[in-house]
Amino acid sequence: MGLVGEHFGGDLRTRLPGFAAIGHNRYSTQGRPTLRNIQPIFADLSFGGFAVAHNGNLTNSRQLRHELVREGAIFQSTMDTEVILHLVARSAKPRFLDRLVDALQQIEGGYALVGLTGKKLIGARDPIGLRPLVIGKLGEAYVLASETCALDIIGAEFVREVENGEIVVITDDGIESIRAFPPRTASPCVFEYVYFARPDSVVQGRSIYEVRRRMGHNLAAETMVEADVVVPVPDSGVPAALGYSEASGIPFGMGIIRNHYVGRTFIQPTNVGRQAAISKKHSPNRAVLEGKRVILVDDSIVRGNTSKKIVQMVREAGAKEVHLRSASPPIVNPDFYGIDMAAKSELFAAIHTHEEMVRELKVDSLGFLSVPGLYKAIGEPVRNGMQPQFADHCFTGDYPTALVDHQHDESDKEQQLSLLDDV
Amino acid sequence: MGLVGEHFGGDLRTRLPGFAAIGHNRYSTQGRPTLRNIQPIFADLSFGGFAVAHNGNLTNSRQLRHELVREGAIFQSTMDTEVILHLVARSAKPRFLDRLVDALQQIEGGYALVGLTGKKLIGARDPIGLRPLVIGKLGEAYVLASETCALDIIGAEFVREVENGEIVVITDDGIESIRAFPPRTASPCVFEYVYFARPDSVVQGRSIYEVRRRMGHNLAAETMVEADVVVPVPDSGVPAALGYSEASGIPFGMGIIRNHYVGRTFIQPTNVGRQAAISKKHSPNRAVLEGKRVILVDDSIVRGNTSKKIVQMVREAGAKEVHLRSASPPIVNPDFYGIDMAAKSELFAAIHTHEEMVRELKVDSLGFLSVPGLYKAIGEPVRNGMQPQFADHCFTGDYPTALVDHQHDESDKEQQLSLLDDV
Amino acid sequence: MGLVGEHFGGDLRTRLPGFAAIGHNRYSTQGRPTLRNIQPIFADLSFGGFAVAHNGNLTNSRQLRHELVREGAIFQSTMDTEVILHLVARSAKPRFLDRLVDALQQIEGGYALVGLTGKKLIGARDPIGLRPLVIGKLGEAYVLASETCALDIIGAEFVREVENGEIVVITDDGIESIRAFPPRTASPCVFEYVYFARPDSVVQGRSIYEVRRRMGHNLAAETMVEADVVVPVPDSGVPAALGYSEASGIPFGMGIIRNHYVGRTFIQPTNVGRQAAISKKHSPNRAVLEGKRVILVDDSIVRGNTSKKIVQMVREAGAKEVHLRSASPPIVNPDFYGIDMAAKSELFAAIHTHEEMVRELKVDSLGFLSVPGLYKAIGEPVRNGMQPQFADHCFTGDYPTALVDHQHDESDKEQQLSLLDDV
Amino acid sequence: MGLVGEHFGGDLRTRLPGFAAIGHNRYSTQGRPTLRNIQPIFADLSFGGFAVAHNGNLTNSRQLRHELVREGAIFQSTMDTEVILHLVARSAKPRFLDRLVDALQQIEGGYALVGLTGKKLIGARDPIGLRPLVIGKLGEAYVLASETCALDIIGAEFVREVENGEIVVITDDGIESIRAFPPRTASPCVFEYVYFARPDSVVQGRSIYEVRRRMGHNLAAETMVEADVVVPVPDSGVPAALGYSEASGIPFGMGIIRNHYVGRTFIQPTNVGRQAAISKKHSPNRAVLEGKRVILVDDSIVRGNTSKKIVQMVREAGAKEVHLRSASPPIVNPDFYGIDMAAKSELFAAIHTHEEMVRELKVDSLGFLSVPGLYKAIGEPVRNGMQPQFADHCFTGDYPTALVDHQHDESDKEQQLSLLDDV
Repeated sequence: MGLVGEHFGGDLRTRLPGFAAIGHNRYSTQGRPTLRNIQPIFADLSFGGFAVAHNGNLTNSRQLRHELVREGAIFQSTMDTEVILHLVARSAKPRFLDRLVDALQQIEGGYALVGLTGKKLIGARDPIGLRPLVIGKLGEAYVLASETCALDIIGAEFVREVENGEIVVITDDGIESIRAFPPRTASPCVFEYVYFARPDSVVQGRSIYEVRRRMGHNLAAETMVEADVVVPVPDSGVPAALGYSEASGIPFGMGIIRNHYVGRTFIQPTNVGRQAAISKKHSPNRAVLEGKRVILVDDSIVRGNTSKKIVQMVREAGAKEVHLRSASPPIVNPDFYGIDMAAKSELFAAIHTHEEMVRELKVDSLGFLSVPGLYKAIGEPVRNGMQPQFADHCFTGDYPTALVDHQHDESDKEQQLSLLDDV
Repeated sequence: MGLVGEHFGGDLRTRLPGFAAIGHNRYSTQGRPTLRNIQPIFADLSFGGFAVAHNGNLTNSRQLRHELVREGAIFQSTMDTEVILHLVARSAKPRFLDRLVDALQQIEGGYALVGLTGKKLIGARDPIGLRPLVIGKLGEAYVLASETCALDIIGAEFVREVENGEIVVITDDGIESIRAFPPRTASPCVFEYVYFARPDSVVQGRSIYEVRRRMGHNLAAETMVEADVVVPVPDSGVPAALGYSEASGIPFGMGIIRNHYVGRTFIQPTNVGRQAAISKKHSPNRAVLEGKRVILVDDSIVRGNTSKKIVQMVREAGAKEVHLRSASPPIVNPDFYGIDMAAKSELFAAIHTHEEMVRELKVDSLGFLSVPGLYKAIGEPVRNGMQPQFADHCFTGDYPTALVDHQHDESDKEQQLSLLDDV
Repeated sequence: MGLVGEHFGGDLRTRLPGFAAIGHNRYSTQGRPTLRNIQPIFADLSFGGFAVAHNGNLTNSRQLRHELVREGAIFQSTMDTEVILHLVARSAKPRFLDRLVDALQQIEGGYALVGLTGKKLIGARDPIGLRPLVIGKLGEAYVLASETCALDIIGAEFVREVENGEIVVITDDGIESIRAFPPRTASPCVFEYVYFARPDSVVQGRSIYEVRRRMGHNLAAETMVEADVVVPVPDSGVPAALGYSEASGIPFGMGIIRNHYVGRTFIQPTNVGRQAAISKKHSPNRAVLEGKRVILVDDSIVRGNTSKKIVQMVREAGAKEVHLRSASPPIVNPDFYGIDMAAKSELFAAIHTHEEMVRELKVDSLGFLSVPGLYKAIGEPVRNGMQPQFADHCFTGDYPTALVDHQHDESDKEQQLSLLDDV
Repeated sequence: MGLVGEHFGGDLRTRLPGFAAIGHNRYSTQGRPTLRNIQPIFADLSFGGFAVAHNGNLTNSRQLRHELVREGAIFQSTMDTEVILHLVARSAKPRFLDRLVDALQQIEGGYALVGLTGKKLIGARDPIGLRPLVIGKLGEAYVLASETCALDIIGAEFVREVENGEIVVITDDGIESIRAFPPRTASPCVFEYVYFARPDSVVQGRSIYEVRRRMGHNLAAETMVEADVVVPVPDSGVPAALGYSEASGIPFGMGIIRNHYVGRTFIQPTNVGRQAAISKKHSPNRAVLEGKRVILVDDSIVRGNTSKKIVQMVREAGAKEVHLRSASPPIVNPDFYGIDMAAKSELFAAIHTHEEMVRELKVDSLGFLSVPGLYKAIGEPVRNGMQPQFADHCFTGDYPTALVDHQHDESDKEQQLSLLDDV
């Protein structure tokens, strides 16, 4: 619980002897944020110890959990990750890697996982590669990470991405690749480009910073308006705002200052914490805003709460006009693969017309990047409607996998397990 | 970890809503003393939540654990208690109580357990009643406890003991009794009389204090010697020393003072802690010892370390003679049902002749209560050699149950599971 | 805050380098029990660092504190000990020891203090030696302690008591003695014999255990009654009860069992804690009490609350008669030198007649040791009425020193300083 | 110790009843960072409780402390702030405000202090107003803060700055102003403009963001070079880099990404922590840097360590040329008023020629803003050499106050007090 730096200090190396280590920093979208739900999760299986952590969400974990509990499995946590552990434990296969493949073939959803046994470091991505996982090298040692920026910070060299549907096995003898699924076209989550990845990361060979700057270019081209200053909602809106300024010729200004030591809005684990975090996260820079026609650029609009507060703050600081621009298309469908967006009924663009949004946000104008504009910014001239290059269901409704738990949601309720208590 | 009072304060009632509660204070004789191994242990099973805690040791838990892990069970702890949880979880029976019976029929050893579901409070004793469990009543509420003194402290009324092989089920409708095993003669552990139970407890209708006083009477009759003062090793040796003084006419004196705020020697969980605890636990009362012929009365002699230190301390305080008396017979066999006595090779009386013991302890004489003397003190005129009234294997070698894990000890080693890490 | 063992573990030596150390375990009778009031208290004075801790109470500390604050002194705590530190800091004398003498000559009350500078370990007792302080030796090193039992526990040899009005200064060159006050007859607190000292300690050459046994002898002679068993209130009543049994011929029995891991009633720092502690501290041993005429022996009766609860408990355990005996005289006057007895209006014997006490306690008879009986037990045939051998004001009203703060209590109220907050 | 948010949660209001509160967040430049040295510091004085906290450094505190200790004062901390408390405590004046004035007239240096008594909230600035302090209003309540951005975050309205040499006293009756010093021209620290203040703060009526942008304009005019991109060292270098880009026409790019959850380099309290913090604080954004001629803009260069690391990082990310620009003049003299710059021997520009700096930093060119350029950016056309408008001694050597402690530094050493231990 808390920030990484509060728990892992300088003596990490001495406290954790061994040939390899895995760690995890998860905004728990399934399972309440309790001590029980901290990853990696470990078990002593018949072949030895096995630890696993994953990024993403399984879309059939509740159904699998029901079946496993009915067969006598005892769960330590409420995390979907633990399902993987039990499937490995119960597999009839004799070799560990066969058991792992057996387990992965039963789960649905989007995931990038890392695992550790006494001799093997494992990395795996789901069949369509929804969540990212990259391989780096530091001297002779291999490193797995979600983003390339993590490699840069420790001075490791980028090798390649783990491919969709690939399992990599790292041992003293080097790295080995296993294909456990029939070949499919990759469809990584488009939100890595829009919001998740850091601007200094490279995804599929593309600089996130440059992609976002191009989103700003395309956004300016699609939603131009006369104004005095282009102001980003920091930090995530900065590259798109710089792009907007470049394409429009309107000067760029840091009209909003981020209050440090308050985390990303998305990262606060409870709803109460989220409200509090919003209110203290940004301060207006009156010198940039007062008397000005302001184009405000954010990466996306989800529930609309943050946008409303920021618009109001900018107006109170004296802005004459406020034009809000979202560097991504309207979000009209929920995600089930690891983004905490909750129900469709909470998505601002899903439940309001354009006019209602303008009125509720109290802006002079509102513009979104189009889906083609988004694809072009990433470097894909045309979206392949039959098999989209990215998982863009939040904008388009095209979900790339089955949603087992979601479909059984109603009938499920009555069979719900008793809940584990908070610790 | 630590003392009960450090964890359970005055707001216990408000922190623990619900119709019933179970707790546990265990000197972990199996499984290292870590956070993972704190009882009760809980699981979310297919019929709902189930928590369990037990006093005693299972003698086939390692074998059962091996089998369960081979079938895919994932253990959270290294405690034998968790085996029970998994056996309940995997039982093919549909009703919870049938599953519990199913589980209990597979385990061997000595245990008194308490369990809790959303609606039932459970108590159970093993088929021969090795470990104690009593039923009390406080107003309309039933209470389960290991000893009657616990009932006295909270003002509850003693109802009866749970019988050997009995399962009691307490619900809103009252108490119900289940017999899961073929009838057998009870054979409770004789060490409750010798050491474990508190002097103000009543076991099988007998006052522990009176039994121990009679042990002192019989000990005096069997091992009389001329002396000036009878000195107990406090606190557990006090009743037997008072009995010895009464029967011998030699005055009683508190020649050893116990240093409070240092726990029972037996209770410190590591070997290092145990040594340190011994050295600070007792102080000599020179006024009682100096220039005197001292009869020192202790409840038992296990490893001999405590006795050596105390004899030396008494001598250094000026005693002219030291005659050590044990209010129980020589301990020559290890226990496997919940008393932490480790291997036979560590038992003082098992590896030394009487003369060696006298020499090592540096005493003027050494005397033990006889097995018949012990039985008589408890109120049994004769020990039934074919079916002893008590589990007295430590003195006699007659083990009342199979010792599965112990017999497979050697071959087991190579199949040993990797160990869970300390937390 | 809390028990010594919780704070000082095995690495004490490595954490505290230096040539000497002082420590303190105080039941704060002045100043609320907060972190600020933990002793020793340290200051960086013009000649270097000085730390001090003391046992006892100053009777003019409030007046001195007022004066010091009026002159600009800033206090860190609410303890009377800090007054000593400020008097040393402000003394006009150039040498440290002269400053210390200067300070001690200004304070009134009963104290035994230990102090530490970069080169000197100091011990001092007030002019009449109210509170105890002994010198021991461990190898070449000197040790100061309140009681001889502390020397025994660490294996140090008793050298002598620090005398009343003496200051001892221990340096690398050995021990030196300073006399800062005109010679006076010692008048140590009689409560060391009655209650404070441990039974294995030796005070003024007398074994506390033997003195208390003789109190029991004299108590039996003065307050004999027919009965079946003599039962101590453990642990402090045990020696007197053994003496009572010896003198009366009535058998001794442990009819009350002390529940360990609950501290001395006196030690719980708040009134609420004190009530709770009483209720869980003792359990009845029915086998000894049921159907019996019981003589209950306690060391003293202060507020009467504990006695009432114990008598009731003994009756509920089936005692036919209860005869309560106090091994000290009736306490009819408050103490101001370090015993937390609060106001006269709370002292049971001060506000009730003998008949009222019998009725309130619900006993069949009540007896106190007489003042002559107490003196005789200690070894003084006759109390010197002009200059009593002991500070016995609680029994007799003869206070051995001026009570400055107490006399100004009323007028003081309006000049009361604002209170420091709890930490 | 630690971040504000870790200690002050949502229940602050209920935990701190009272009419007013003061708090402090200090990077301790005097006195080691220990629990003892946490501000505010409180004392119970003869007129009641008084708490005080201050920003800045006293330049004669060591001398005053020596004198006070010699007169018998006992210090709780090693902070210079405590000197103020003792001077107030010892003042001969009868009224509190007179005592405070008395104390302030004895201290030298730069400070902004807040104080609290039972009825008064106090704010004070040193005679030349070195450190900032502003007054705000939230409803009927007055607020004191170092910067206007703190008022914005809580929604308070800016009223005015506390003036140099002014003491403001806030009570239930409103605000009152006291002038304790002869009138002097203000000379606030120029580093508020350069580095300390947040970009959204307003100091002396000037927007910090705009001042820094103009520093960038002037820096470009003074140190122009051909390049492909202007990259700020975030976050403090951003406004000047935007200004540089505007004035030069060279595009702005976020070539360095700040790793959040690692604090300001300056804020880590030990040297070891500072090194570690630097190495993880920034990441290169290769897409912006690779193959480019980069102008790197930072607010200032102090020790040169951070600059060296950043230049190296930018080169390793593929920059073809690196031109380093400092938005402030070379720092060639130490500060003694609250900026932790240590000795002259550690100041990069003080101990190196321009050529050496270029070589050590491994840059293609190096440029600093001139002192006139700095004054113009702030809005002062000409620096008044006789009485500079700002305390700019770090650049010019013109110290605005006496430096008592500094001058006595050598002879002082031998009279040094023993040090208080870390807690």
